[in-house]
Amino acid sequence: MSDTAPSTRRTSPVAPASVRVPIAELSDLMVRTCLAAGLNHRAGRRVADHFLTGELRGKPSHGLAKFAFESRFFPLRQGPPEIVRQRGVFTVVDAHREIGPLSAEFAVTAAIERARRLGVGLVGVINTQRYGVLSTFTEAIAAHGLLGIAANTSRAEAVPAGGASAVLGVNPLSFALPTLGEPLSADMGTTLAPMGVLWEHRRSGNPLPEQCFVDAEGSPTSDPHAASSAIVFGDHRGFALSLLLQTLTGSLFGFPMGSDVDSTWGTGYAFIALDPTFAAPDQDAAAANTRLAEQLRAAAAADGTWRLPGDRGRALEAAARTNGTIAVPGPLLARLSARSAGDFTSD
Amino acid sequence: MSDTAPSTRRTSPVAPASVRVPIAELSDLMVRTCLAAGLNHRAGRRVADHFLTGELRGKPSHGLAKFAFESRFFPLRQGPPEIVRQRGVFTVVDAHREIGPLSAEFAVTAAIERARRLGVGLVGVINTQRYGVLSTFTEAIAAHGLLGIAANTSRAEAVPAGGASAVLGVNPLSFALPTLGEPLSADMGTTLAPMGVLWEHRRSGNPLPEQCFVDAEGSPTSDPHAASSAIVFGDHRGFALSLLLQTLTGSLFGFPMGSDVDSTWGTGYAFIALDPTFAAPDQDAAAANTRLAEQLRAAAAADGTWRLPGDRGRALEAAARTNGTIAVPGPLLARLSARSAGDFTSD
Repeated sequence: MSDTAPSTRRTSPVAPASVRVPIAELSDLMVRTCLAAGLNHRAGRRVADHFLTGELRGKPSHGLAKFAFESRFFPLRQGPPEIVRQRGVFTVVDAHREIGPLSAEFAVTAAIERARRLGVGLVGVINTQRYGVLSTFTEAIAAHGLLGIAANTSRAEAVPAGGASAVLGVNPLSFALPTLGEPLSADMGTTLAPMGVLWEHRRSGNPLPEQCFVDAEGSPTSDPHAASSAIVFGDHRGFALSLLLQTLTGSLFGFPMGSDVDSTWGTGYAFIALDPTFAAPDQDAAAANTRLAEQLRAAAAADGTWRLPGDRGRALEAAARTNGTIAVPGPLLARLSARSAGDFTSD
Repeated sequence: MSDTAPSTRRTSPVAPASVRVPIAELSDLMVRTCLAAGLNHRAGRRVADHFLTGELRGKPSHGLAKFAFESRFFPLRQGPPEIVRQRGVFTVVDAHREIGPLSAEFAVTAAIERARRLGVGLVGVINTQRYGVLSTFTEAIAAHGLLGIAANTSRAEAVPAGGASAVLGVNPLSFALPTLGEPLSADMGTTLAPMGVLWEHRRSGNPLPEQCFVDAEGSPTSDPHAASSAIVFGDHRGFALSLLLQTLTGSLFGFPMGSDVDSTWGTGYAFIALDPTFAAPDQDAAAANTRLAEQLRAAAAADGTWRLPGDRGRALEAAARTNGTIAVPGPLLARLSARSAGDFTSD
């Protein structure tokens, strides 16, 4: 199965005109798309909320555009997800090609259940469609007072700094800490930019961000049609982290790794929940995390040069929800409208 | 308790003359130091082997110099380490100020035992002396066919890129994957250089590596006497990873975090073992990891610009062991000799 965007070269890399659209209307378009794919309203709402959150948090490559792209595959779902093995803290889920956010929610529930019983739950998911931002799932774990971690791999699309040969996937990581208020969450690719940026820029013809992608010879390029792989962040340290995530989403669950990840359906996902009351029943981890977050916020305010993970996204989301509308490129709105009318074949 | 090196400014930052010393002799000096601190020969040998491995793998700040520094505190040990709580996959160890590598070995054994029973073992250690490189412990886990992960924190000594206010510790991370041969291991600080480099350069007066440390105002400096904090790698992504490690070595076990880490004894350590046979009993994780490592080695050889984690260190160690001697700065050799004669008070 090919899930790459077509590489037709556009001659005019000018940003298309945007229109301001009420958030509720965008949500409605996505919900109706889900209904057309056979979901009930409640599930459709959860899928729509997931991608909307990515959009509102300032990650458009994981928001509406990703919904428009991924929803092509919604009719392929054979779900619901199924637990195919469970032993100790481990659970393995065959998602039967379920829509990504629904597969992830299923895994989150299983991880929480095991963590409550044994202190930790590790859930591996395979054979699923994809999702947008990971942090909505780790935050769902943290909302139960647990430390949540999520990661997934992709086909071999990431090269270490200076390299040309992709073996590892782009391997994003998210975690969320329970606090006395909203979870403190982080959501990061282990590449300097997600592959979604490459797909979208191939569509628009706009140049890629500099020094984030390489061509087949390993030369950095901003040409979305020449670029083939994303550069891993943080030199050898970032590469080591990506390697760890590759195995946590791979051999730990018997899932493919490296060149053996040859399709969406063979891509591994991992969801982890950890219960801090097991090791420290007399202490309040949420209070301790809140205290740490307060120290970090005070330091960030004093320095004025850095932010806590997640803070920018939450601020953007709050502003957008207050405003009630967001700017959407015209062609994207047209794609969403077509999907909502049951068109799952046009690009 | 203060465990920082004295900040006496040396006027002559010239590298002291080195002498080549047989490895066996260096090991003997360290073993005799351990005997003088009350260890039996077998335990002393393990401590010596640990720090020697760091030295031979090209991490002198975690090798002989760290042994010379840390061994000042060997007589403070009140060990042996003790399991003070165990529930589900979690174990909490009070190390009773045991010498670092021995505390870590105790934790590794406990982590493996739980992983064999439940799929995962998570061991938190507090009230311990410090060790050198983490990878000797994760490799010990991987030698049992398990995925090994280890991390620890430190006092608040790390600032995000562009920052001045340290809240997080330097938070090193190691992991080791079981393969059909030697474990594939990585060992990395989440700062661009370890604080050990700062302590040693304060001693020698040599300039620090550029762009790795900042002074109290957040200005990068190579002056070891002006520098106060280490810069976190990988911008916001590296900072997010450091934050995750802070909680895995902190609130997950009820251990201090941020400014509450105010001494060596209040510094948290985490050791994790994961058994891949729980989720995938019919597959061979070591074979899968070997296949991934082979793909990575082929890619690295084709590119010629990057290496696998751990490969450089292993090559250095093999070359040093073949040679049989290594170069040791004269003053360091004198310190090791004094320690081996039972001098735990001189610096």
